[in-house]
Amino acid sequence: MASTAGGETLAAPDPIADGRTEGVEEEQVVNPWEVSAKGGKIDYDKLVDKFGCQRLDDSLIQRFERITGRRAHVFLRRGLFFAHRDLSDILDAYERGEKFYLYTGRGPSSESLHLGHLVPFMFTKYLQDVFKVPLVIQLTDDEKCMWKGLSVEESERLARENAKDIIACGFDIERTFIFADFSYMSPPIYKNIVRIANCVTGNKIVGIFGLTLEDYGGKFFFPYIQAAPSFPSSFPHIFSGKHSNLRCLIPCAIDQDPYFRMTRDVAPRLSYHKPALIESKFFPALQGESGKMSASDPNSAIYVTDSLKDIKNKVNKYAFSGGQDTLEKQRKYGANLEVDVPVKYLNFFLDDDAELSSIKEKYGSGAMLTGEVKARLIEVLSEIVERHQRARAAVTEEMVDAFMAVRPLPRMFA
Amino acid sequence: MASTAGGETLAAPDPIADGRTEGVEEEQVVNPWEVSAKGGKIDYDKLVDKFGCQRLDDSLIQRFERITGRRAHVFLRRGLFFAHRDLSDILDAYERGEKFYLYTGRGPSSESLHLGHLVPFMFTKYLQDVFKVPLVIQLTDDEKCMWKGLSVEESERLARENAKDIIACGFDIERTFIFADFSYMSPPIYKNIVRIANCVTGNKIVGIFGLTLEDYGGKFFFPYIQAAPSFPSSFPHIFSGKHSNLRCLIPCAIDQDPYFRMTRDVAPRLSYHKPALIESKFFPALQGESGKMSASDPNSAIYVTDSLKDIKNKVNKYAFSGGQDTLEKQRKYGANLEVDVPVKYLNFFLDDDAELSSIKEKYGSGAMLTGEVKARLIEVLSEIVERHQRARAAVTEEMVDAFMAVRPLPRMFA
Repeated sequence: MASTAGGETLAAPDPIADGRTEGVEEEQVVNPWEVSAKGGKIDYDKLVDKFGCQRLDDSLIQRFERITGRRAHVFLRRGLFFAHRDLSDILDAYERGEKFYLYTGRGPSSESLHLGHLVPFMFTKYLQDVFKVPLVIQLTDDEKCMWKGLSVEESERLARENAKDIIACGFDIERTFIFADFSYMSPPIYKNIVRIANCVTGNKIVGIFGLTLEDYGGKFFFPYIQAAPSFPSSFPHIFSGKHSNLRCLIPCAIDQDPYFRMTRDVAPRLSYHKPALIESKFFPALQGESGKMSASDPNSAIYVTDSLKDIKNKVNKYAFSGGQDTLEKQRKYGANLEVDVPVKYLNFFLDDDAELSSIKEKYGSGAMLTGEVKARLIEVLSEIVERHQRARAAVTEEMVDAFMAVRPLPRMFA
Repeated sequence: MASTAGGETLAAPDPIADGRTEGVEEEQVVNPWEVSAKGGKIDYDKLVDKFGCQRLDDSLIQRFERITGRRAHVFLRRGLFFAHRDLSDILDAYERGEKFYLYTGRGPSSESLHLGHLVPFMFTKYLQDVFKVPLVIQLTDDEKCMWKGLSVEESERLARENAKDIIACGFDIERTFIFADFSYMSPPIYKNIVRIANCVTGNKIVGIFGLTLEDYGGKFFFPYIQAAPSFPSSFPHIFSGKHSNLRCLIPCAIDQDPYFRMTRDVAPRLSYHKPALIESKFFPALQGESGKMSASDPNSAIYVTDSLKDIKNKVNKYAFSGGQDTLEKQRKYGANLEVDVPVKYLNFFLDDDAELSSIKEKYGSGAMLTGEVKARLIEVLSEIVERHQRARAAVTEEMVDAFMAVRPLPRMFA
């Protein structure tokens, strides 16, 4: 996958993506290689309409809670995951006792991840826990070799490093298969890649992904490689027999929608289920929604490798505040919560609804100051990052091998 | 590979290839999907110039004989293999004691092969024998799935059937690895596919292979799949250690040249040797060089499954004769050897130089009649086909498994 809820593509578009939309007067462009909008703020309502996916509304969230018997994840009830395709069908089937599997992924383009990169994995872990279903995680090292000019070896190394951060999110090894494209490429997935390719014309690829014939060859076939894990027969070591036509649910950021629109188009022609999707917004940069989380600007995001001092410094110095300029004005007018980044971050990471609502109320009315809100955010983020760092430090090479071993998952529904 | 020296593409161009050159006023079109010429006869001299390959002249053939200590194969000394790229470099290296490997292939689009299909394999077997070098044979079942709309399973079945005919040509199992793309697809070859794709733009693929964006996706990436076996690291089970940058020599029909032009272009950027080529003309149809050997017209070619009665009937009834209409005229004027198909076939299959020259002399002068020449051709072809059928009948499923097993070839240079 090119990006994740981390919205790295909000960051510096790679040089090849640049200019692709030259002359096209679109207000916003969202595809796996480019996320941009006039004024910088994505209009998610328009995006849902343009892509033709569905809004994840309160009644669906309530149904989700009823069926799973679990509180909806903070990312779900606070609207970070906000759109879907056929999630209701997955829930219908689940109610009937039918199983499904989860599929998500990451393009391993950088060594260290920021919090936004973790969002889809944190959410996927939650889904795995509440549904007790198997999960496949694709690391698209081949894609990064195609797009970023990394060598095969460097792409493979990054994939393995990223696998450690993913494992640190707490996935259940009995239900989780992590694979990197270069090392997993094999007849079952290749056959699906060819089957998919045989249903999609060059025009369609160019249209969906905004490619031009100036692009290098790999880019024309990578979309099939990201599509193939949506079909269970790509993993015969996991899904055989009665599981060979299992449904698939894909948690991902909405910029990945084009891949799966294509996949859903093709699925019925190959007698597979269309994969269902649950899609997130982009995680905002510290500088605000119109800012860019960028690997080239370490101050635009909280990295999972940041020290507590880094976190404190970044939040205090760079997190865009909706508070007033002066203490006096803040007490009088309160903060503008719409643009305040600390509140946005708390919205996604502070699980306690009562506390969040109290902070919003007080901060919005002026009873609370920016410094106080930032201090709370620093606590919350520090806890997450510290927990992640502890978990990451415990991930051994043997664990990576174990998660990436091509093996059956006999207890995947147990 | 799309076609072979068998020149199946002289036959019915597949519907997608049709019209690709619409509006292009070229005298002849030769690419892996289309072979056509005004008047039907390919001008090979022009083709060599256009492609930029080299003529395989007498001095090179003599050098070949000196170095190998063996008589040049009839296909070589009678000009069926007529062009090359860097064959001299291969011979230079061989003289210095350096080794190389052979790579050829077949697109398994039909159940039964005709004699033209066997040409590259007969010649490759000869090369393997005289040089004592390893050989990899690619069966592009994936390509046939992409181009011919065959299912994955049917393409795989045809590949295996074709492997039996190839094995029947007498390849040495200690030096030969036969693989089908669907079942061999694996990290080593996939990494080379991606490396190659990263060096070739969409424009180049479209230009070299005459594709349009109307074509389905697989066609845009298949060229990398045919290119990859030119690099020894695609086969780490065979070529490791000191053999990991072995030179490669590819015997093939000249319509495959575009694949390997692309491959040669890319090779230095990946620090591989450019593969060398030895290229054949297309094998003529029974109806003559402007006729079409076509799977849809069984009377256009001699099939390896033909009975002796079929062969007799086809040669007598369909082989285009350069002899005169009447006995009297034949005795007086003699035959036109330039267009006579029996003589062309004898040219490729009658090893005895003295006998061939005697037939040509007598037939051309009128001392010999068409019927007599055809009778000799029927003998020659029957012997070849009978021998092939006997060998084919002896090929067991276990032998196919053994040739296709992913294994080292410890005696490949012995």
